[in-house]
Amino acid sequence: MSTAAVSAPRVVRTIAELRKEIGNYRAAAPQGGKVGLVPTMGFLHEGHASLIRRSAEENGLTVLSVFVNPLQFGPNEDFDRYPRDEKRDLTVASEAGANLVFMPDVKEMYPRPSQTSILIGGITDRLCGASRPGHFDGVGVVVSKLFNLVQPDRAYFGLKDAQQVAVVTRMAEDLNVPVEIVPCPIVRDADGLALSSRNVYLTPEEREQALVLSRTLRLVPEWIREGLTASELTDRMKRQIREMPLADIDYVEALTYPDLLPPEESAPLASSPASLLVAVAVRFGRTRLIDNILLPAAKG
Amino acid sequence: MSTAAVSAPRVVRTIAELRKEIGNYRAAAPQGGKVGLVPTMGFLHEGHASLIRRSAEENGLTVLSVFVNPLQFGPNEDFDRYPRDEKRDLTVASEAGANLVFMPDVKEMYPRPSQTSILIGGITDRLCGASRPGHFDGVGVVVSKLFNLVQPDRAYFGLKDAQQVAVVTRMAEDLNVPVEIVPCPIVRDADGLALSSRNVYLTPEEREQALVLSRTLRLVPEWIREGLTASELTDRMKRQIREMPLADIDYVEALTYPDLLPPEESAPLASSPASLLVAVAVRFGRTRLIDNILLPAAKG
Repeated sequence: MSTAAVSAPRVVRTIAELRKEIGNYRAAAPQGGKVGLVPTMGFLHEGHASLIRRSAEENGLTVLSVFVNPLQFGPNEDFDRYPRDEKRDLTVASEAGANLVFMPDVKEMYPRPSQTSILIGGITDRLCGASRPGHFDGVGVVVSKLFNLVQPDRAYFGLKDAQQVAVVTRMAEDLNVPVEIVPCPIVRDADGLALSSRNVYLTPEEREQALVLSRTLRLVPEWIREGLTASELTDRMKRQIREMPLADIDYVEALTYPDLLPPEESAPLASSPASLLVAVAVRFGRTRLIDNILLPAAKG
Repeated sequence: MSTAAVSAPRVVRTIAELRKEIGNYRAAAPQGGKVGLVPTMGFLHEGHASLIRRSAEENGLTVLSVFVNPLQFGPNEDFDRYPRDEKRDLTVASEAGANLVFMPDVKEMYPRPSQTSILIGGITDRLCGASRPGHFDGVGVVVSKLFNLVQPDRAYFGLKDAQQVAVVTRMAEDLNVPVEIVPCPIVRDADGLALSSRNVYLTPEEREQALVLSRTLRLVPEWIREGLTASELTDRMKRQIREMPLADIDYVEALTYPDLLPPEESAPLASSPASLLVAVAVRFGRTRLIDNILLPAAKG
């Protein structure tokens, strides 16, 4: 454990420089020095900052990667307009305690098209895996590349993308990647909206109506205590979300976590022997937002 | 560079022991000490021994893995009857200079079914990739696991499976695996038959007729100098192989290497600007044999 001094992180844009910097760190601190990785697509907000701070607390070297990965965007998604702000990202990175920032361009990460794809079956059949075909394959490839480039001891992922956490954890287990995946809690604005780089797309009216997501999710534990089954719960959630005229529901689902299987249909969720993920994806105008709540398994 | 002393290698059967042994080695020799990996399915012959010797020459620690990987066998293939002889394998490993032998069982490598699959497109469309659907996906998973477990500086593969060398090299490049893939020449018996663990399946008559493969491949450079195109070459090879009544051809192909694309159809192979792989897969009785020759690109 060490707390990094708050000083400007070193910025590298090539794989060669990245490997050299990490090699230098490991050579100087070969035994105790741990490396933490925070993989992001940039346009950093307080959610990302919380991951960086956690890594800086737990590791001697914190590597932040900023790369908008074209492979995880579908053909009609927002790759081109995805928000980017390198200067602000470096300020956030510095304040949160990152030591090394890897900011490659697409050519550096994909000098030629990847012939290799990584498919994580089963847990990608539902939620965003169903709505965004190929998305998690793109995540699998870029996360594998970053794991191989940085060889981190720990990697930090936000639970707003709870399915991504499940997918990356499963991939690391299946392939024996020597990394600890550290899931970190969702960070919200004061009004409850889960932080997301895509929130900047929202008009004031859309943003106002989008608060229905966190409001609905906050009620979930109470509704589950009432004895609802999965479909009763998601029906009630959908009714509440649809009260907002701009809300266009992509999915509202309750699944076991981290296996992402449907819970037993006729049983009250309150008696679920597995942890539960209740997750929503809803479009407001052109902007698709996701949010979720993770609930522990019922006690024996 | 160091030559390992010829002493009995240490045998480990669990991932935990493997990681501990490699960690111990790296801790004792943190800078100069390189780790070489020779992944095999056991039933070792002189071809495997040549890989181990090469690794022992080039690395401070040579790890041999012996694991018959169920994922790379098709449902009607020879997983169950694939030859196994642990005791002999350890003798070969010891004589060739392996330091550490990893012999996991299936439960250790796959404690539950892998939800993660690795597909290497393009270069797996032809040759064994076409004849053995799913084969290279299984290779991709197990090789990725071994790379993550051993984190070798170099990994040694025999060119008898030239497509496997191309596939593993491409996967390592696409995913930025920090390993050098070292392709090693085919080793043959005195009569020309390429060494293979599957050769033990052959009856004396089948073995005699199987010599047609190396005999035909030896003529390929001369036939290419005559000015043949790819289809003229492979037609002539097929005619020669079919003179053996037990030969049942799976494929005979001439492709660029390592991209495994068809060369220009109307051009003589002698003028190919790319390296060429001329590869055959032929069944003799129940046994499918592969062999090949790799030819350098035509000089400017």
